[in-house]
Amino acid sequence: MERVCIGIDVGGTTVKLGIFEVTGRLIDKWEIPTRTQDGAKYILPDIAASIKSKLQEMEIEMENVAGAGMGIPGPVMPDGHVEVCVNLGWKDMNPQRELSALLGGLPVKGGNDANVAALGEMWQGGGKGYTDIVMVTLGTGVGGGVIIDEKIVPGKHGLGGEIGHIHVRDEETEHCNCGGVGCLEQIASATGIAREARRKMAASGTPSVLREKGDAVTAKDVLDAAKAGDSLADEVVETASRYLGLVLSQISMIVDPQVFVIGGGVSKAGQFLVDKINKYYQQYAVISDNKATIALAKLGNDAGIYGAARMILD
Amino acid sequence: MERVCIGIDVGGTTVKLGIFEVTGRLIDKWEIPTRTQDGAKYILPDIAASIKSKLQEMEIEMENVAGAGMGIPGPVMPDGHVEVCVNLGWKDMNPQRELSALLGGLPVKGGNDANVAALGEMWQGGGKGYTDIVMVTLGTGVGGGVIIDEKIVPGKHGLGGEIGHIHVRDEETEHCNCGGVGCLEQIASATGIAREARRKMAASGTPSVLREKGDAVTAKDVLDAAKAGDSLADEVVETASRYLGLVLSQISMIVDPQVFVIGGGVSKAGQFLVDKINKYYQQYAVISDNKATIALAKLGNDAGIYGAARMILD
Repeated sequence: MERVCIGIDVGGTTVKLGIFEVTGRLIDKWEIPTRTQDGAKYILPDIAASIKSKLQEMEIEMENVAGAGMGIPGPVMPDGHVEVCVNLGWKDMNPQRELSALLGGLPVKGGNDANVAALGEMWQGGGKGYTDIVMVTLGTGVGGGVIIDEKIVPGKHGLGGEIGHIHVRDEETEHCNCGGVGCLEQIASATGIAREARRKMAASGTPSVLREKGDAVTAKDVLDAAKAGDSLADEVVETASRYLGLVLSQISMIVDPQVFVIGGGVSKAGQFLVDKINKYYQQYAVISDNKATIALAKLGNDAGIYGAARMILD
Repeated sequence: MERVCIGIDVGGTTVKLGIFEVTGRLIDKWEIPTRTQDGAKYILPDIAASIKSKLQEMEIEMENVAGAGMGIPGPVMPDGHVEVCVNLGWKDMNPQRELSALLGGLPVKGGNDANVAALGEMWQGGGKGYTDIVMVTLGTGVGGGVIIDEKIVPGKHGLGGEIGHIHVRDEETEHCNCGGVGCLEQIASATGIAREARRKMAASGTPSVLREKGDAVTAKDVLDAAKAGDSLADEVVETASRYLGLVLSQISMIVDPQVFVIGGGVSKAGQFLVDKINKYYQQYAVISDNKATIALAKLGNDAGIYGAARMILD
C-alpha cells in the first residue's frame, strides 16, 4: 500500500491527529483530549496509543508509516528539545524522542505549532505551489511562521516568526504578555482589536453599533460592523490593518517571500481585511511593485496536522 | 596543488578580485578599473583577462580553480539573470553565464553585493563560526544581507536584506531614493546621519562643535563629536541607533539569527555605536534575553571578495 505520514497538533485542550498520503491527501483525522494533569505525563502515551489503535483499525502496518510530525505550542530547539511549554506543563524534555520510543522507533519530528501551521498552508493551503511563504495567524495572539525553500525558519533561539511581538506603536502604554510595550499583537490580534474598539468607544462620542455590546465587544463584532459601514469600527480595523501592513512590508524587505498567508479567527473577515492590509503594505513597501502578494489561509484548524505531517517528509 | 576559488566584487568604479584557498585563506587580491563605457561591454572581458593573467602569473592551472563568485551592485535572480544594474549600465543579461563562457566554462555564480558581503563576514569576518547572520552595512545607504544555514536569502523578488528601505519614521516628509518616505536609510546611513545633524542644527540653538562644519558636516564628524560628548551630535547618533535597534528587533522576531554584523563606513565608530544600537535593540525585543548578539564587521572592503569566493563552495 501507499506510504502514509502522521500529523499531530498538540493543543492545550485537544490533540488533533491526521493520517495523510505522502502526496498530501488527508485520509483521516480525529481528536483526543489533552490530559495535562499529573505533570502532563499522559499526553505522549495517549497520542501513541491513539495512533496505534487508528493504524490497526485502518489496517496500516507501521512499516508503511514514513513518520510523524508534531506541532507543539511553544519553542522547540532544532534537536527537538523543549525547555518549557507553559500550556502543556512540559519542562526540559524531548517529546519527539519520547514519542518515537513509544512508537517503536518511528521517525518523529517536533516543531513550534505556528511554524508548523505555516508549513501546512504551504503544502496544501493558501500557499500551495509556493516555496517561500510567511503565514500570519490572527487569533487570540498574533503568530507567524516563516518558510524559506520549503523549510521552516525556526530561528536560532526559537524566535523565528514571532512577529506578534514586533514593536509597532511608540505611544502605547500598556504592557504586552511578552513584557514589551506596543507589540503588533496588542493591536491586531482578536484580543487587540476588541481592546482598540473599547478604547475608541471610551475616547469619543462617535455613535456606533458597537456601543450596544459595550465591554463585551469582540473582534468579530468589530469586523462585521466595519463591513456594514460603521465608522468607529472601521477606524479600529484600519488601525490594525495599518500595523499589519507595516509588518508585512518589514518581512518583505528582510526575507522577501512569494506570498503572505493570513489565517486565524480574525481572518474569517476575508478579502475585506486582506484589501485593507494590502493598502498599507503597498504604502510601506514602495521600493518595488514586484513583491509578495497576500492570500487567505485555507486549512483552518487543520493547518497544524498538515504541516506536522509535511515536516517528516524532508 | 590546493584547489582555489575566486572572488569578484564588481563596483561602479573598480572591480576587486581575490584568489582564496577553499579553506578561506586569501592568497592574493588586486583591483582593476570598471570600464562602464560603450554599454559596459568591457567589464566581463576585462575581468576574465585579469583572472587568466593572474592565474598564469601564479602558475595555477584552471583545473585547480573550483569556480568564481561575483558580487553585483543590484538585484540578481536565482539563475543569475540581471534585469538592470544602474551603476554598471547592465541590462537584461546573465553575467554569470557570460563570464563562465569567457573562462572556458568555469563555474561562475552571481549574487547581490550586499548579500555576498554578508556571506563573506560569515565565512571569515565578524560572523565567523556562525551559520545564521544578518549583516547591516551603514554606508552611503543602508544595505543588508540575510544568511540562514550558511546560505544567502536573496528573496524571491530580489528584496531579501533590503533593510535600508524598511519604514521607520511616520513623521518624515522627504522622499527616499526608493520612493518611500521615512526609510531607515534616510536616518541611519552616512548621508542620513549628516542630514539629521543639519536638521538639528537648523531647528535649535544648542551649541555644538558641528556648527563649525555647517552644511559640510559628515557622519564621521557627528560620530566623533558624539564620542567627545557633544550633546547635539549625541542626539543624532541616538536617533539613528534607535531606528537601527528597532529594525534589528524586527529581524530577530522574523528570522532570529545568531549574530548581527555591523559594517560599512559608519561602523568605524566601533563599540560606541554598537552599544547604542544594542540599548535600543534590547528595549524593542523584550520577549527574550536569549537572542542574536551584535558584532562589528571585520573584513572592511574585502567582505565582497570573500563572500563571492565562498558562494562557489556550496
